[in-house]
Amino acid sequence: NYMPMGLRVIRKVEAIIREEMNRAGAVELLMPVVQPAELWQETGRFQQMGPELLRVKDRHDRSFIIQPTSEEVITDIARQELRSYKQLPRNFYHIQTKFRDERRPRFGVMRGREFTMKDAYSFDRDREGAARSYDAMFAAYKRIFDRFGLQYRAVAADTGAIGGDLSHEFQVIADTGEDAIVYCPQSEYAANIELAEALPPGARPEAREAMSKVATPDRSTCADVAALLGIPLQRTVKSLVLASDEKDPTTGDIVSTQVWMLLVRGDHELNEVKAGKVPGLAGGWRFATVAEIESHFGCKPGYLGPIDMAGSVKVVADRTVAAMSDFVCGANEADFHLAGVNWGRDLPEPELVADIRNVLAGEPSPDGKGTLAIQRGIEVGHVFYLGTKYSSAMNATYLDESGKPQLMEMGCYGIGVTRILGAAIEQNHDERGIIWPTAIAPFEVVVCPIGYDRSAEVRAAADALHEQLLAGGIDVVLDDRGERPGAMFADWELIGVPLRVVISDRGLKAGTAELQGRREAQAGTIVVSEAADRVKERLAAARA
Amino acid sequence: NYMPMGLRVIRKVEAIIREEMNRAGAVELLMPVVQPAELWQETGRFQQMGPELLRVKDRHDRSFIIQPTSEEVITDIARQELRSYKQLPRNFYHIQTKFRDERRPRFGVMRGREFTMKDAYSFDRDREGAARSYDAMFAAYKRIFDRFGLQYRAVAADTGAIGGDLSHEFQVIADTGEDAIVYCPQSEYAANIELAEALPPGARPEAREAMSKVATPDRSTCADVAALLGIPLQRTVKSLVLASDEKDPTTGDIVSTQVWMLLVRGDHELNEVKAGKVPGLAGGWRFATVAEIESHFGCKPGYLGPIDMAGSVKVVADRTVAAMSDFVCGANEADFHLAGVNWGRDLPEPELVADIRNVLAGEPSPDGKGTLAIQRGIEVGHVFYLGTKYSSAMNATYLDESGKPQLMEMGCYGIGVTRILGAAIEQNHDERGIIWPTAIAPFEVVVCPIGYDRSAEVRAAADALHEQLLAGGIDVVLDDRGERPGAMFADWELIGVPLRVVISDRGLKAGTAELQGRREAQAGTIVVSEAADRVKERLAAARA
Repeated sequence: NYMPMGLRVIRKVEAIIREEMNRAGAVELLMPVVQPAELWQETGRFQQMGPELLRVKDRHDRSFIIQPTSEEVITDIARQELRSYKQLPRNFYHIQTKFRDERRPRFGVMRGREFTMKDAYSFDRDREGAARSYDAMFAAYKRIFDRFGLQYRAVAADTGAIGGDLSHEFQVIADTGEDAIVYCPQSEYAANIELAEALPPGARPEAREAMSKVATPDRSTCADVAALLGIPLQRTVKSLVLASDEKDPTTGDIVSTQVWMLLVRGDHELNEVKAGKVPGLAGGWRFATVAEIESHFGCKPGYLGPIDMAGSVKVVADRTVAAMSDFVCGANEADFHLAGVNWGRDLPEPELVADIRNVLAGEPSPDGKGTLAIQRGIEVGHVFYLGTKYSSAMNATYLDESGKPQLMEMGCYGIGVTRILGAAIEQNHDERGIIWPTAIAPFEVVVCPIGYDRSAEVRAAADALHEQLLAGGIDVVLDDRGERPGAMFADWELIGVPLRVVISDRGLKAGTAELQGRREAQAGTIVVSEAADRVKERLAAARA
Repeated sequence: NYMPMGLRVIRKVEAIIREEMNRAGAVELLMPVVQPAELWQETGRFQQMGPELLRVKDRHDRSFIIQPTSEEVITDIARQELRSYKQLPRNFYHIQTKFRDERRPRFGVMRGREFTMKDAYSFDRDREGAARSYDAMFAAYKRIFDRFGLQYRAVAADTGAIGGDLSHEFQVIADTGEDAIVYCPQSEYAANIELAEALPPGARPEAREAMSKVATPDRSTCADVAALLGIPLQRTVKSLVLASDEKDPTTGDIVSTQVWMLLVRGDHELNEVKAGKVPGLAGGWRFATVAEIESHFGCKPGYLGPIDMAGSVKVVADRTVAAMSDFVCGANEADFHLAGVNWGRDLPEPELVADIRNVLAGEPSPDGKGTLAIQRGIEVGHVFYLGTKYSSAMNATYLDESGKPQLMEMGCYGIGVTRILGAAIEQNHDERGIIWPTAIAPFEVVVCPIGYDRSAEVRAAADALHEQLLAGGIDVVLDDRGERPGAMFADWELIGVPLRVVISDRGLKAGTAELQGRREAQAGTIVVSEAADRVKERLAAARA
């Protein structure tokens, strides 16, 4: 349930999104929560999607789904409503309840099952038009997130099978974020960790050591081996064993399985999205089973390496590993590693070399303009070029100037409305509670009268200020409960209203009131008769 | 799908509702579409409701429902949030997507399965408080429906098992309405047909005829019999056979069945809701099967009557029938009726006499102040006193001044947001299209320039007027398509925008524009430089 204060924030977030979407020429409509399965069967997603797609049968045993997104329905609308090139480009959006049956819903609005999303869909004549629509949405998203008053980054993201570079995530910066975002403080470069390229290192140094087998009893991790041998972790190589299955297209039975060894430096981490782009793994991969590992290496995990393997294994070296010399790796024998290993001499040059690891902070930026830094972020928006994936599956065509049907080029653009609340709070809080940015705060200002229930003067002054601010179009709330100051202030600090005016008998005698921003340690004294003007000035400054 | 024009209307309807609910002190929140079955099991509705309640299981096989309404969830919120008498009264509402798995969804937004409803729920300390909350909502609903600009009636409705008189439907008047509403033009009386009382007739006239059996071959309806005998339909009596089953409370098996004969005058109609209030039928009834009829009357339907019945039958006479003499009814013999039948002489006085029929227009008003009239209506709102039905099932209590837990008294208040659109159109249309009331029109005014695509003067004047109206806070749309006048006017008349300004080269030469209301046959000529003022005056008049 969204309680009243949270709902006020949701409505403000929605209003900002709506204004900027309309300004960008998008047209609002509303698609249903419960959608017919037929449309989802046309694109195959009804069959392909896992249990996160909530399927339901009606009283007549017909199938429906509770929408997690609306590509199918909007494409159905487009193929009915958009017949001619004259009607393109077009961008439709709605702000609607979504449902994803997450295996582990958690963190409240951050990953709940039911949530509100703004999803927009653009329809264009061709790829160039789609790119223009994409750019327009990208610009609109920047205006939207600027107006929210949140620190964020637009980061390049993976485009998957579609290809190209038209995919960006809008990440709200927060230490608790699930995502790692990579950026260059010296340039405009920003990408999510899945996409950020680790540049190739320099040339491989010459071999200096002879290869030797060293006893590493019970040292199954690179860190333990490096500590035992007294060498930096950067001298070790980690072996990860994957498998790819070839399936019979009709029965789905596994016909054959290829085992892979992926090598990354001991202090590096495998990037699973990058691994999925290696030729041969792009069709899907899984981690190998212990049985597969033992049959292909004759050894248990923890002591594996690319030398003297028992079975047929494809080796993929990360670019960094391919440039290493005199390194340490597993010996394919329990409790032993090999040291002083060198490519070309002790084992063949790697079959495949690829960027398969996460970048680290401090590495050079892929744009050549500086050094990378890493922040945590919360993904709250995504703009994505879809191409003709849905229009071809559902035959959504328009007639061009020559009267020939052409597939529409699509893009999709989402903002997690309710997740914005969680992200804003993660980014803006202290030990006393939330600190809402003014633009999305449940109220812009709270009037806190001390003794509202017992002082006629305080009541009159507070009521007058409340009325004045309301008349000035300020979103103000008056705390008319008559609570004691401590409890009253604590409530509003917890709720996170950005500005507070305190009216008291003592202040009124001196002709003053107190004005305090939620982030300020001290209240300022203002002339009570000018309180409304001072509040308006502060709010105008916050908006600028 | 709600397309852009319809969605604009929905948003205006929602805004009016929201403003008036807030004005009445109700507090908006938002409850989920997908709700846990546990709460619905607490009240028993999960088990009791038919297939119109859409049930769904998640990936962990837990049960959920797609909400048709939110009594359970709001009562769960209330029992958590409202602990003390100091927090009462309280009224929470939300505007949210609803789903009812209707057997036959029809008439578009009038009876769709997915729709938007505003549902409010009041919580009070006692019945007197609940009545005050009810009255406040009744008043708020009148303001809401007044602002919509629709012709409507608030009519008394049945309260079912709760009793009392705190139930009103808000009916939008329309010839195509599903509901019959009964009102008295001379007084404030208004009720739906289920509730409207048919007053008892005068005393029974004396018997004048002897009873006789008359052949009525193939005449199985009262109308056919009256025509054959050359008597008014008002002299005949219609026999309706019902059955009530007594069930074993544990197994649900039928233990015994009572057959009933309900008698209404030939020109009257049985009112099923009234029948359901007859002692013995209040637990539920159904129409009897042909087998039951034949075993209890020794005769097929069409010739039944209350004399010489074969089995044990309880007879209920409508008040009007009980006051009839010399009437005609079936003889319980195929192709025969009895004429000149009189109570007390030819058959015993009726066991039960009750108001079980629909009133007719022209009958006296139950408030004694005039004569009834009947209109068709579309139910778009309902205010209803719930008592402690949900709070007792879910143990929603507050602590009173003495610290003792007391059940909260509840009321519920719904408005069918999306149905408003259908009702408004049914009430306000002509052969050219919709005629929206100004308050809920997708746009208040359309600027139609003739030759926008080819005349610089027309374009400049139209753009200027559009800007002026926007700056004046008018919800205006500019038709910048460059369509020919006929097609352009037809589009806007179909859409139903209430006011149209036409700007043309010919008019500009004379310094004039044309202003025409959607209901007006002729356009008026206005000075083009004063067009914005004239539009504002017209809209201000429409609002007043």
